[in-house]
Amino acid sequence: MARIGKLVVVGVGLIGGSFALALKEAGAVGRVVGVGRGGRNIRRAFDLKIIDAAGAFDRATLADADLALLAVPVGQMRAVMRAIAPLLGARTVVTDAGSTKEDVVALARRELKGALSRFVPGHPIAGTEKSGADAAFAGLYRRRRVVLTPLKGTEPGALALVRSAWQSCGASVSELQPKEHDQVLAAVSHLPHVLAYALVDQVARARNAKQLFSFAAGGFRDFTRIAGSHPEMWRDICLANRKALLVELKRYGVELERVKKMLARGDGKALEALFSGARGARERWLKDAQ
Amino acid sequence: MARIGKLVVVGVGLIGGSFALALKEAGAVGRVVGVGRGGRNIRRAFDLKIIDAAGAFDRATLADADLALLAVPVGQMRAVMRAIAPLLGARTVVTDAGSTKEDVVALARRELKGALSRFVPGHPIAGTEKSGADAAFAGLYRRRRVVLTPLKGTEPGALALVRSAWQSCGASVSELQPKEHDQVLAAVSHLPHVLAYALVDQVARARNAKQLFSFAAGGFRDFTRIAGSHPEMWRDICLANRKALLVELKRYGVELERVKKMLARGDGKALEALFSGARGARERWLKDAQ
Repeated sequence: MARIGKLVVVGVGLIGGSFALALKEAGAVGRVVGVGRGGRNIRRAFDLKIIDAAGAFDRATLADADLALLAVPVGQMRAVMRAIAPLLGARTVVTDAGSTKEDVVALARRELKGALSRFVPGHPIAGTEKSGADAAFAGLYRRRRVVLTPLKGTEPGALALVRSAWQSCGASVSELQPKEHDQVLAAVSHLPHVLAYALVDQVARARNAKQLFSFAAGGFRDFTRIAGSHPEMWRDICLANRKALLVELKRYGVELERVKKMLARGDGKALEALFSGARGARERWLKDAQ
Repeated sequence: MARIGKLVVVGVGLIGGSFALALKEAGAVGRVVGVGRGGRNIRRAFDLKIIDAAGAFDRATLADADLALLAVPVGQMRAVMRAIAPLLGARTVVTDAGSTKEDVVALARRELKGALSRFVPGHPIAGTEKSGADAAFAGLYRRRRVVLTPLKGTEPGALALVRSAWQSCGASVSELQPKEHDQVLAAVSHLPHVLAYALVDQVARARNAKQLFSFAAGGFRDFTRIAGSHPEMWRDICLANRKALLVELKRYGVELERVKKMLARGDGKALEALFSGARGARERWLKDAQ
């Protein structure tokens, strides 16, 4: 296990804060310095012992850091990269936790200059609906997947450090191409989020919305749980990955046309085959995921 | 609270068995007789004290019953109604637990003959993915909604008895027109089930299905939980309510086109408004439902 002497977390919310706590619990980090826009959240992170000190976008904070995690919304990524690029030490490894990777890689190529070879794009597939330092906990990444999307020129040592850090958090680390990552996540995460938001929107805009909601039950609640996610964050993810997401939405439209035709011609056999196949595939997935 | 001297449950599974257990726990029923096709399930129901005796489609079972609950799959409803119609006593009230109501009402009009005025169509909006007598428990209907869809000629006494029985189970009872019931359930239950099955099917049929599933996480799991539901049961529900379901699927297609257009033109403001509105509507619903 690689030990990180000094870790800087930019954005000490659920994602960044949990990374710091998990590394501390594993004994894999020395000192953690937090940087954030919200003074209150940073003070809270300090009180909760998530960070050992509050830092800033300056050389004192960044020049001697072994690792910097950028755990800010995608919309702030450019400004953060631009701010840190001239301040990083010659050894400082940088990683991020953004939900989309092609856009982050493009930003890094433009903004990180000499530090680009020590940048390891990453995406921990974990989270809750909560946010802020108060929501952070050491176990967030345990048995979760983290995807790293290293570039051709990424230094092997930088990749190894980031991989080892996430493994210390209890995560299972995979590597994908940035484009491949975005396509996979569009299919199994971004599409379902959009579908859930759209269903709630449809019910809410109905003439008899109040009546409809009054008869919604547990199935509706679980199906739409992800429509409780953060609107700005999901706006950014959808925009950043809109090309892959549009492909998935189109495929889903074709899929629904198939179902509509089965229904229209009263084809119970085809409906049952589809439902039964889907249930089986889901059960196998849940079993494999254990 | 009306006390039911003798209750006959046709189909002693999760729904029928839980009704019997709840009434027993409330002290609202005397004797419970179970009727079913599967000898093993009926014996299990007896061992579990869900029923006091096993009956059959004969006068000894049905002629002196105060209430008969038909808790069989919609596909068996016609045969069951036809079998019991000549056996029912002059006072026996009949109700059902089917997930769709227009089709059940149409069957009842054809099959129940003189007992039609004592038939109270019903739908308890409750359930789990489990089935059979083993899955039954007294608390299934506590704080859940039950919809009754009485007909013009339904005897007030019959309606009052069924209403009181469900209230004894802890449920909140509403009345709707059969058609209205089917439209409401198409929007908040049948549509989400079809959407969840379709998403799992889409992922399972992808060229890289194995990879996609391997990166699916908690959001996907909750969104698709209802795709773990019973395929034959949902085939029957979809077919029975296909008119209303097709209307909802068409509306959903229009909704998705709206979202696609927002994405295609990169309209972050519109996306955020939709996501934010949906989240707010869902939060209000959850708050009201408590």
